[in-house]
Amino acid sequence: MEDLDEAVVLYRDRLGLELQHRETVESQGVEAILMGVGENHVELLRPLGPDTAVGRFLARNGPGLHHVAYATDDIAQALEAVRSAGLRLIDEQPRAGIRGSRVAFLHPKSTGGVLTELVEAAEAH
Amino acid sequence: MEDLDEAVVLYRDRLGLELQHRETVESQGVEAILMGVGENHVELLRPLGPDTAVGRFLARNGPGLHHVAYATDDIAQALEAVRSAGLRLIDEQPRAGIRGSRVAFLHPKSTGGVLTELVEAAEAH
Repeated sequence: MEDLDEAVVLYRDRLGLELQHRETVESQGVEAILMGVGENHVELLRPLGPDTAVGRFLARNGPGLHHVAYATDDIAQALEAVRSAGLRLIDEQPRAGIRGSRVAFLHPKSTGGVLTELVEAAEAH
Repeated sequence: MEDLDEAVVLYRDRLGLELQHRETVESQGVEAILMGVGENHVELLRPLGPDTAVGRFLARNGPGLHHVAYATDDIAQALEAVRSAGLRLIDEQPRAGIRGSRVAFLHPKSTGGVLTELVEAAEAH
């Protein structure tokens, strides 16, 4: 969404999720908020500019679902497993994600049109 | 996706999720598969025809993320809460979902472009 504060009103005040973390990730061109729901998170994303991956997505599609992330204890092993399974990677090596995590994206062309992320948390949260 | 068996190859054989349930829900015009991941599910959907909600989505957008569902113990109470919060509903009353669940959809116009579903399971799974 263009306006993260509006998104917080929706997810915290109207849907009842808990705001757990807010961070700007310059390297990915986003400001992100993690809302807690059970053992999961809904990540609210605002692009830092139009010429970022999320900015281009928003211009093309409008606000909506952007990607799905799966937690893993060992992102190197998980990346090797999906590479061996023949899936196409956007990130051949993990890069820095929110809250000290290491992340890697798979290409939606090989995951049924769904941008898919692997995340190894920095520590237990 | 148009081909659920291909989707199963992707999610079970390549990404390592477990196939937990497969069901045709005529009233919603879909064949659905639940893949387990932690306490969550990825639901794979195939439209029963082009003139269904998912068929129209697929024609318009191609395969991709369709909706997000949140579990609730009391869907009547949850629906009342989001209605009171000013959110627009697609379903004023719960209707039958997969595996004996009761479900209701919120309108994406009031949820930041994200089609959002509430689900009360028939029993603990």
